[in-house]
Amino acid sequence: MQNLIKIALIQMKVGPDTSENIKKAVNSLEHTAKNSVDCAVLPEMFSCPYSAENFPSYAEPAGGPVWQVLSKTARRLGITIVGGSFPEKEDSGKIFNTSFVFDPSGKEIARHRKIHLFDINIAGGQHFRESDTLSPGNSPTLFRIKERTFGLAICYDIRFPELFRLMTDRGALGIIIPGAFNMTTGPPHWELLFRCRALDNQVFTLGAAPARNSESSYTSYGNSIIASPWGEVLGRLDGDEGILIREIDLSKAEALRQELPLLRNRRKDIYSVVFTEKGEQTC
Amino acid sequence: MQNLIKIALIQMKVGPDTSENIKKAVNSLEHTAKNSVDCAVLPEMFSCPYSAENFPSYAEPAGGPVWQVLSKTARRLGITIVGGSFPEKEDSGKIFNTSFVFDPSGKEIARHRKIHLFDINIAGGQHFRESDTLSPGNSPTLFRIKERTFGLAICYDIRFPELFRLMTDRGALGIIIPGAFNMTTGPPHWELLFRCRALDNQVFTLGAAPARNSESSYTSYGNSIIASPWGEVLGRLDGDEGILIREIDLSKAEALRQELPLLRNRRKDIYSVVFTEKGEQTC
Repeated sequence: MQNLIKIALIQMKVGPDTSENIKKAVNSLEHTAKNSVDCAVLPEMFSCPYSAENFPSYAEPAGGPVWQVLSKTARRLGITIVGGSFPEKEDSGKIFNTSFVFDPSGKEIARHRKIHLFDINIAGGQHFRESDTLSPGNSPTLFRIKERTFGLAICYDIRFPELFRLMTDRGALGIIIPGAFNMTTGPPHWELLFRCRALDNQVFTLGAAPARNSESSYTSYGNSIIASPWGEVLGRLDGDEGILIREIDLSKAEALRQELPLLRNRRKDIYSVVFTEKGEQTC
Repeated sequence: MQNLIKIALIQMKVGPDTSENIKKAVNSLEHTAKNSVDCAVLPEMFSCPYSAENFPSYAEPAGGPVWQVLSKTARRLGITIVGGSFPEKEDSGKIFNTSFVFDPSGKEIARHRKIHLFDINIAGGQHFRESDTLSPGNSPTLFRIKERTFGLAICYDIRFPELFRLMTDRGALGIIIPGAFNMTTGPPHWELLFRCRALDNQVFTLGAAPARNSESSYTSYGNSIIASPWGEVLGRLDGDEGILIREIDLSKAEALRQELPLLRNRRKDIYSVVFTEKGEQTC
């Protein structure tokens, strides 16, 4: 069993031209493979601008062109790819904010549909309503890299501690979160949330964000980040394009769970986080 | 209904002499009353050194001398007192780490027995086992100041997000946490936890700690703190003795819950934090 997993977080600018975005993503993925990573992570909505009204026109099905590029690139490079997210169109016509994961053979091994849609309206700050055009997923998502279990969530999902408990209880030692916070919520909350979810659940948290783009209607905060189970920041970018590569040692999470037994010290005799039938059905 | 609540956090050095500790606590409480506070909060284990082996010899029943001083002082000063905590001895012989709350008439209105006992063993860092001498409480605790609902937890309880969800769902807009982190866990975790619990639950969090005392076997980190529902630090002491006084505006928590509807956006259709029968029985 491998303890050391080398992961790259790709922070790229995203524009309105999908083929340009895909070209940039593939170039970045090739760069990470040269650095012998096990897994590379693209940012949330890496194929199109982050704009609720535009998601429908950019939406593609699983198996469509963007999905194909990710699958083939994973196989060609021999790495696991967490495909950030793009708008996924289902046969029903519903659209989801979906992250597909491909193993080094190019096989799709996980598909996370963002569970918590981002609907906020801060006085004097950010306004956004994903639910105008998107439907939510209903289940937590886990997958394996080198036989070790990772969780997967998207952006606003990080604000809900229950989801992180569920992924931890299903074996996650690392949780990957493509996300695009903004200039209202990014500075006060982004690092805080990555550090505290990591600390509470004694996992590594890894967040890949789009780079800041002053030409887009929604300005991503950037600041792709990796936090340790002790709540430390192991690496963090700023607002510019870049790639953050770190090797994480999962045995450190397991050792900490012995020294500071937060998970064992939960009072499961008096409370618990439970999944309803609806959630279980779709797992 | 009052939105503005003025609260004092008393950060005092605690020594081995209970009567000296009580005298210092009462002097500090008198000082806060002169500043027209609604509520004053003492630190965890303000009556005796924080040492598991010594808790039994310092333990007193509800209604005993320390309890009496707190009740009488609350009535005399006309303020709500959150009595930090002291070792409470029950008729059964069990000892708890208990925080008693008294209203301005001196009546006991809440009693929180620490739910999560502090058992840690960090390699090269802090070792402590509360469970060697203490028994745990089994229920969340809420009380009212000026008809507004507050939650109450003690120290290690803050590490468990489920408890904070339960208090929030029962109406808390502020959560008071007497606590004594140490020099291993304080610097990396204390502020992080107060800020993130406040942010996640859109409540104010308020932590009162003993001042640092180099003569004691357990060195408290101090750093009494108030964090806002936006995750900002509204006030914080260092390691020395001091009193932190702030007026908090509960309407700000309510307004934020409309702008950034984190509590409403939880996916209660697919997960929830539930209390078991054992927990409910003792509420």
